[in-house]
Amino acid sequence: MRGRVVDGQQGIDGLMDDIGRRARAAAADLGFASAKAKAAALIGAADAVMRRQDQIIAANARDLDYGRDKGLSAAMMDRLALDEGRIGAIADSLRAVAAQPDPVGTVLAEWDVPSGLHIRRVRTPLGVVGVIYESRPNVTADAGALCLKAGNAVILRGGSESFHSSGALHACLVEGLRAAGLPEDAVQMVPTRDRAAVSAMLRMTDFIDVIVPRGGKGLVGLVQAEARVPVFAHLEGICHIYVDRAADPAKARAVVLNAKTRRTGICGAAECLLVHRDVAATLGQQIVDDLIAAGVEVRAEGLRGSVPATAEDWGMEFLDMKIAAKVVDDIDEAMAHIRRYGSGHTESILTEDAAAADRFFARLDSAILMHNASTQFADGAEFGMGAEIGIATGKIHARGPVGAEQLTSFKYLVSGDGTIRG
Amino acid sequence: MRGRVVDGQQGIDGLMDDIGRRARAAAADLGFASAKAKAAALIGAADAVMRRQDQIIAANARDLDYGRDKGLSAAMMDRLALDEGRIGAIADSLRAVAAQPDPVGTVLAEWDVPSGLHIRRVRTPLGVVGVIYESRPNVTADAGALCLKAGNAVILRGGSESFHSSGALHACLVEGLRAAGLPEDAVQMVPTRDRAAVSAMLRMTDFIDVIVPRGGKGLVGLVQAEARVPVFAHLEGICHIYVDRAADPAKARAVVLNAKTRRTGICGAAECLLVHRDVAATLGQQIVDDLIAAGVEVRAEGLRGSVPATAEDWGMEFLDMKIAAKVVDDIDEAMAHIRRYGSGHTESILTEDAAAADRFFARLDSAILMHNASTQFADGAEFGMGAEIGIATGKIHARGPVGAEQLTSFKYLVSGDGTIRG
Repeated sequence: MRGRVVDGQQGIDGLMDDIGRRARAAAADLGFASAKAKAAALIGAADAVMRRQDQIIAANARDLDYGRDKGLSAAMMDRLALDEGRIGAIADSLRAVAAQPDPVGTVLAEWDVPSGLHIRRVRTPLGVVGVIYESRPNVTADAGALCLKAGNAVILRGGSESFHSSGALHACLVEGLRAAGLPEDAVQMVPTRDRAAVSAMLRMTDFIDVIVPRGGKGLVGLVQAEARVPVFAHLEGICHIYVDRAADPAKARAVVLNAKTRRTGICGAAECLLVHRDVAATLGQQIVDDLIAAGVEVRAEGLRGSVPATAEDWGMEFLDMKIAAKVVDDIDEAMAHIRRYGSGHTESILTEDAAAADRFFARLDSAILMHNASTQFADGAEFGMGAEIGIATGKIHARGPVGAEQLTSFKYLVSGDGTIRG
Repeated sequence: MRGRVVDGQQGIDGLMDDIGRRARAAAADLGFASAKAKAAALIGAADAVMRRQDQIIAANARDLDYGRDKGLSAAMMDRLALDEGRIGAIADSLRAVAAQPDPVGTVLAEWDVPSGLHIRRVRTPLGVVGVIYESRPNVTADAGALCLKAGNAVILRGGSESFHSSGALHACLVEGLRAAGLPEDAVQMVPTRDRAAVSAMLRMTDFIDVIVPRGGKGLVGLVQAEARVPVFAHLEGICHIYVDRAADPAKARAVVLNAKTRRTGICGAAECLLVHRDVAATLGQQIVDDLIAAGVEVRAEGLRGSVPATAEDWGMEFLDMKIAAKVVDDIDEAMAHIRRYGSGHTESILTEDAAAADRFFARLDSAILMHNASTQFADGAEFGMGAEIGIATGKIHARGPVGAEQLTSFKYLVSGDGTIRG
């Protein structure tokens, strides 16, 4: 796939308008496509990924060259790189989505009303989903697959770094659609690196029903400033972990270490440790010692071995071997800190006191609240949802891990027998 | 309640900012208010409405004077007017919402995953809801009550015509909140008629989680142009009714007459009749004769007694004793017409052919689809939901009748026992 040359904002608007129209037309057909056809398209795409492995690796090599020229960090280059193992994982993920139950047409509820009508509430596709993401090429396959599973057409706009890799994966999805007799326009990729395409997508209210933005602060800011299309917000994962005075020491030490260090680059990694004052000098200090021994930089006040925390450390998404830490007077101060600095993603309380856990669950309002568990479990697969597009931090429509079910809407089907209203 | 004098957009922005902050603070408390306290507040409000009947009628008289000066139509004046019967109905509606089950805290689903975690998905309030509406004063009570039931703080912005009536009803809601020990800021009303307040609400992303706009084309246009806050769209009710070739004549005649004439001013009233060509001269003509005999102006082509339809009649929301009518070649042409001109509200098919009904249900995508039933049933109370804020025509989050349940979100509560991710 080549970057299509388009002329300024007007050219982009024309291009995107055309993509939007095609997506809308494809969505009309997809809305009643059979579960079998959709699954066949996904399996066909997985087969194509395996068959085209060499092409995908060649496309990825071009992206890696581009990334080196741009001076991407080692972490960014690692996210971008594809090898046989990662390509196999992409194909497996497509097959896993194919094997999930099809959400469309499920009767969510049904009941009779006194007028004699029978009412059913059934799942429907949303329509057209726009996904705006950054460097990981596998998002192309996951997002495309989940949208298709839910009967939606999708417009994918990946990061410029992964342009060729994403294009090669997109070609596999199209091959699967074609073989299954579904419209090829069901999964489209924006064929230009021009950022004006993102702005255009954010305003395409006639053609896009919802935007799923996955990315850093720059993208989130652009979306907040410009979006006219509804958005499933995916903010940062500023996850907190609170060690209560009634925490079990062994569990707390294991869970905090896991929450911070298992993988530091994922959105479910803990970024801030809060410790009840009564156990700060004992368990709290042990946990800090554990973290430091594991190579984590602890930014805190009054905990041995830590470096002094600054104001910027609260609410910081380090995505690194760093953690902010704070001693709090009680659970309410911990919750106030979380409300102020959290991003509504995932928070965990470590305690053997059921009342404290209940208070934490009732009074905080993040997408995911945990008790005696590692924040690293904030993940669609760990929740049993198969793949995910991401973890939504907003409260409208989708929240937490966004899988195929969260990409649906519903309608009411009302059956009568010549029933009139009195 | 007097219109507060504020100085231009800057003054309005300051006023609205203050209202937003208060709402956000109230929402934090309401999020875990007990079901009992919320129900008590609603019953207290209903009592206050009955006790303050004279004050409400006096406030309404001021609005009616204002309406006469502004030259409102008889229909508008009728919507605005309150009498003892209508005030009693408002109190009854508050009591009905109080008696409904409380949605907050309901476990929507729970399951175990292989890691040993137990996951629950529970209903939570949305946060702060902004409701922008027009002349009917009872919306003040209904919208305030439903938002409160769902644990949300609400900012109400009624039409300028019903300013004093809505203020008097709002005072009753505040009285109920106070008596129940809930924050008075849980239900606030914008204390100015200045339209700049609407623009401010549409941009208050920090303080308002969702906007519910109920009104005509002017409001819908403003919302589409300016909203930065998520919106539960409530478009017009351009409801279609399709008489299939396999329709039962007696049922079809009764249902079409009811769908058009029972009440013409509600959003569920039928605005367009589509008739299969095979029965146009027989059943179709009979239905047209029935409508004309009932005093309905039929705008059509090729049906006796009708006046010629113009292009503007397709997709027109008459809200009057008028209906557009068209002969179509088959069900697919009927559905194509509905897709092109409908507003995604409610459509009904009249047929004894189950396959035709299935096709209509599967291939159309309005919020409500009906079979052998009058479109006038498009109503939250008829669906068994108690009161409603309105009928949402969008596909994000809420769809169809919006009651307390649709005004909630959810969160995940995850319980472990020192569980770490491998």
